[in-house]
Amino acid sequence: MINVGIVGISGYTGQTLIDILLRHQQVRVAHASSRTAAGLSLAKIFPQFSGRTNLVCSQPLVKDIAAACDVVFLALPHTASLAFVPQLLKAGLRVVDLSADYRIKDRAIYERFYRVAHSDRENLNRSVYGLPELNRAVIRKANLIANPGCYSTAAILAVMPLLVLGMCDSDSIIIDAKSGVTGAGKKIAEAFLFSEANEDFKAYKINAHQHMPEINQILSKVSGKKIAVTFVPHLLPVSRGILETVYVKKVQSSKFKAQSVRAFYKKFYRTEPFVRVRDEGEFPRLKDVVNTNYCDIGVKEEKDMVIIVCAIDNLLKGASGQAVQNMNIMCGYPETQALL
Amino acid sequence: MINVGIVGISGYTGQTLIDILLRHQQVRVAHASSRTAAGLSLAKIFPQFSGRTNLVCSQPLVKDIAAACDVVFLALPHTASLAFVPQLLKAGLRVVDLSADYRIKDRAIYERFYRVAHSDRENLNRSVYGLPELNRAVIRKANLIANPGCYSTAAILAVMPLLVLGMCDSDSIIIDAKSGVTGAGKKIAEAFLFSEANEDFKAYKINAHQHMPEINQILSKVSGKKIAVTFVPHLLPVSRGILETVYVKKVQSSKFKAQSVRAFYKKFYRTEPFVRVRDEGEFPRLKDVVNTNYCDIGVKEEKDMVIIVCAIDNLLKGASGQAVQNMNIMCGYPETQALL
Amino acid sequence: MINVGIVGISGYTGQTLIDILLRHQQVRVAHASSRTAAGLSLAKIFPQFSGRTNLVCSQPLVKDIAAACDVVFLALPHTASLAFVPQLLKAGLRVVDLSADYRIKDRAIYERFYRVAHSDRENLNRSVYGLPELNRAVIRKANLIANPGCYSTAAILAVMPLLVLGMCDSDSIIIDAKSGVTGAGKKIAEAFLFSEANEDFKAYKINAHQHMPEINQILSKVSGKKIAVTFVPHLLPVSRGILETVYVKKVQSSKFKAQSVRAFYKKFYRTEPFVRVRDEGEFPRLKDVVNTNYCDIGVKEEKDMVIIVCAIDNLLKGASGQAVQNMNIMCGYPETQALL
Amino acid sequence: MINVGIVGISGYTGQTLIDILLRHQQVRVAHASSRTAAGLSLAKIFPQFSGRTNLVCSQPLVKDIAAACDVVFLALPHTASLAFVPQLLKAGLRVVDLSADYRIKDRAIYERFYRVAHSDRENLNRSVYGLPELNRAVIRKANLIANPGCYSTAAILAVMPLLVLGMCDSDSIIIDAKSGVTGAGKKIAEAFLFSEANEDFKAYKINAHQHMPEINQILSKVSGKKIAVTFVPHLLPVSRGILETVYVKKVQSSKFKAQSVRAFYKKFYRTEPFVRVRDEGEFPRLKDVVNTNYCDIGVKEEKDMVIIVCAIDNLLKGASGQAVQNMNIMCGYPETQALL
Repeated sequence: MINVGIVGISGYTGQTLIDILLRHQQVRVAHASSRTAAGLSLAKIFPQFSGRTNLVCSQPLVKDIAAACDVVFLALPHTASLAFVPQLLKAGLRVVDLSADYRIKDRAIYERFYRVAHSDRENLNRSVYGLPELNRAVIRKANLIANPGCYSTAAILAVMPLLVLGMCDSDSIIIDAKSGVTGAGKKIAEAFLFSEANEDFKAYKINAHQHMPEINQILSKVSGKKIAVTFVPHLLPVSRGILETVYVKKVQSSKFKAQSVRAFYKKFYRTEPFVRVRDEGEFPRLKDVVNTNYCDIGVKEEKDMVIIVCAIDNLLKGASGQAVQNMNIMCGYPETQALL
Repeated sequence: MINVGIVGISGYTGQTLIDILLRHQQVRVAHASSRTAAGLSLAKIFPQFSGRTNLVCSQPLVKDIAAACDVVFLALPHTASLAFVPQLLKAGLRVVDLSADYRIKDRAIYERFYRVAHSDRENLNRSVYGLPELNRAVIRKANLIANPGCYSTAAILAVMPLLVLGMCDSDSIIIDAKSGVTGAGKKIAEAFLFSEANEDFKAYKINAHQHMPEINQILSKVSGKKIAVTFVPHLLPVSRGILETVYVKKVQSSKFKAQSVRAFYKKFYRTEPFVRVRDEGEFPRLKDVVNTNYCDIGVKEEKDMVIIVCAIDNLLKGASGQAVQNMNIMCGYPETQALL
Repeated sequence: MINVGIVGISGYTGQTLIDILLRHQQVRVAHASSRTAAGLSLAKIFPQFSGRTNLVCSQPLVKDIAAACDVVFLALPHTASLAFVPQLLKAGLRVVDLSADYRIKDRAIYERFYRVAHSDRENLNRSVYGLPELNRAVIRKANLIANPGCYSTAAILAVMPLLVLGMCDSDSIIIDAKSGVTGAGKKIAEAFLFSEANEDFKAYKINAHQHMPEINQILSKVSGKKIAVTFVPHLLPVSRGILETVYVKKVQSSKFKAQSVRAFYKKFYRTEPFVRVRDEGEFPRLKDVVNTNYCDIGVKEEKDMVIIVCAIDNLLKGASGQAVQNMNIMCGYPETQALL
Repeated sequence: MINVGIVGISGYTGQTLIDILLRHQQVRVAHASSRTAAGLSLAKIFPQFSGRTNLVCSQPLVKDIAAACDVVFLALPHTASLAFVPQLLKAGLRVVDLSADYRIKDRAIYERFYRVAHSDRENLNRSVYGLPELNRAVIRKANLIANPGCYSTAAILAVMPLLVLGMCDSDSIIIDAKSGVTGAGKKIAEAFLFSEANEDFKAYKINAHQHMPEINQILSKVSGKKIAVTFVPHLLPVSRGILETVYVKKVQSSKFKAQSVRAFYKKFYRTEPFVRVRDEGEFPRLKDVVNTNYCDIGVKEEKDMVIIVCAIDNLLKGASGQAVQNMNIMCGYPETQALL
């Protein structure tokens, strides 16, 4: 049994963390904080939790967090984690950071996309990108997890086997991504009003989204050469879920001859508890993964092209579910604990 | 051909007014203004209007409005119209005010519900409540129309015949009202975010909504005695549309004997171009009226009770459509012009 | 550890039962059947369950069910349970029937509303109405649970304390009910198409819905006198959730003097694990209860009237969640097992 | 003034045709028919039209249609038009066919995708593909219009200028298409239930949709060489609207040097009344075009790639609106009549 804290509970990822962690049998939620909601009980902030917890939301003070917790989740807006991580690590806590602040190793790129200077080079160098399917061994020992972005999780899981297989043209990766509205967090802006987003659909930040350099960084590392994907995100009129349709040109590869791409995907992910590769002719829809921590992948192989369809719940496998998966790995708990 | 102006185009009622008035063959939109969007073309503000108009949004200055327009629509938030109406009337314009500022004759009630002092008693006394089915004759000559609230329009049209018939217990009127999200205007607040309102439904301002005194005022006037309805509004996860279910206890009435309540409703509204009373056993749904200026009414008569179901589009019959209907009456145009 | 079966898995209540029971630690799902899906694995029928179970859907044969199970859930359309219950009981199983077949004690009323003859008078007489808040003690020993209807669960929990308190006019109960589309089951009909129900809202079966006699039967039993509510259901454009707004006229009552109605509700339900009475001025919205087994109740007391707002998830507290709650009671498990 | 008929009014395209044509000042709707709704008034079938027309739906008999109409719209399911077109043409009527039956010139391809033999080779050879932006001159004189598919309209308008410009790799065209649910017609099937499609999103018929050969046929004709696009349609949880994101690799072209791709699009469509090319950095969203006959196009030019975003209303520019646009051209009416 460990004590965990959640900093930034008023957003959707914080709320989702509470929901998961209250069900986790090896965990006690010892701290929940938020600047805007401090002083209120969780049951008042989120009536859905009434009857499940008596916890009161506090101010996010490092010394209180350090006194109460073994592991802490930072469910903060981007750039806000920089103010917490150094001290929390110094105090000996293990940190799972759901913001983007420790994902991008190249500070110049971080600063271009997030428009703020990065003040913590030291910990940035040590952070571990928390994608279990890629980094399970290092996650186990990490003190600072940079929990992946939602779009990035789906994109990397969709493309990674192709790169390992070496059968795709790594210059031709096109990711057409669609996300539900909680992907933007609880952002109070006209574009996210019900009367604007409902019955609407649009592309935005075409080839300019902040998850694109994150995807490029990880895929480049996986493939061993510089990869620059084409990435077009779209806003779906649903609350939760991401579905990405990925188009990659095939190249001839010696490794590839013996098997179908789909069969390789099945093999590649066969031991993964949260990745499900679908059978021939089957493709995931949002409903298969929403409210679960699964990533579902369908593969369509054409003569010159591979089309991958990949779906996750942006708040679970795309954020809070994956964060708890990382915590389970870090603490030696069953990886699926509280996530099935 | 007259020149019309629209003040406050950036909200949903302003946008809807533009859409209708660009189709109106006796009208030229001579002025469109908004503090927040001044300087931009309408096509930039609302790409849907691109190709239909070259108009540029200006600052809402009384002298410009007066120079350009014969009739002006104020699509402003409540309390903002008070700053325009006196001068516009003085300049000789005819005004259709879509805010609540000139609806409630009792200033104390206005001030309690809208939490602002009413600074224009003189014009308040002269304003005409712009419900054509009630006030057509006076609308014709009015210089200041207080365009009815959306909930109020549906409620009054649903209940008015019952009061005239004298067969209902006027102390027992219960209005269970449900409105789509644009009913709240383009209000940028957490409650109206897609990720909050989507897949949700709730009651709010139970017996405390600002349209309740408006309904009470008009129904009291119609019936000749003080009426206080029970009014519970709910927020529907749709963009447009209001449906109200009204419950009234029957009393014995001499007038009532010869006919069914439904038949009386049919007769009551038979000459109205925008009220449709449905046949026996038929009740309106939102889709019957959304994107139209119609108010559809279904009547179910039980032994001791009458149940009325009434539906309108909150942005059309509940706001901008009714405003243009009023303008058509004021100007002697066919009442349905640009509204079918 | 007991073996349970689910008959009728292809509908929404069957699917929801699987989801809950796969998480239940004292239960093994030993049988899952459906006429239309027999022969397919659950993972094929519902890709969301892939990786969680290897169960294969079989034909619903009584001898197989009896051989495999201790407790069986019938998630069948109304009138279909009559073909299973007598034999399953004879075989010694305990049955939780989610259909309406054993809810209404008066067969004439059943036959009028469900338009089929009732062939099993004997078991109808013995069935226990599975509302734990009303019948916990008898549920414990029951062999046949008639699991309540979704609308009925919310209505009864909303009104029951008022009747016990004796402070309401039992002739004046008006229930304005709104349900998400899964309330109708997976019914393939034009009215339930996305393109029909989306952005729509309507009343239906006004004072003629089949849950009305069920509500009347239970409320009459609770109050000791014949109660006939006014009941108007509406179809909400959401997947899940019921919200009911109840209007009741007050009468003077000696019991009532000392306390507020809301305080009485709090006291009435204080030991209930799944009923939450909200604080003064707070009312539930669907989001508070969807995906939970809770029933949330808000109370507004006016001078002459009490307004109750009550919300549940129609597939959980309104069907499958309550069915498992009943099973937990029958088997002596913690009542909240697998439901939090 | 001409007399028009609509065969197949019970579906969404038929309903939309009625709505438009009742507003058309040069047209009298002289015939409306449907096998399933014959005998009912239009006001009963579609309460939204109550008060706007007294027309009664009849059986679709060729002799009645021929006696009553000058122009007839066939809003029929695919393969059903084959039974009407030969006789209607023989009777001297001009026909706008909204089905796919006369779009694909190669009968073998038609038969593979629509799984029915094509019985009318003669008229197939003479039919004109009713895309005004491509075929205005021949539409003017045509007797049989094959009104384009909804996906096809958006895809062709998005890609056509690129092909004319000769600057794109015509082997690399990827169309990621997303359509609202009415795109499938009023099809009563589980996949289109509200409780299935709501809050969901999925790809379907990946590289196998019946509009793909239609797109290929037209684009091949435009470019003068065989084109085979990659086409992945997705089902959006909205009622109306198609948005397609198109990815094309650039090649060097002498024609292209002087100008940006976006500028060329602007020029290409500058005289078109219903195609709007957006300014630099602007891209259409569904709301810009839904309930209009416009096709909005945004262009993003990258170093090696052009990304086109194109949006239409599937029931208007993608079906009934375009059908009326074709009729306007055929009859010499202003092309925008009844469509603004």
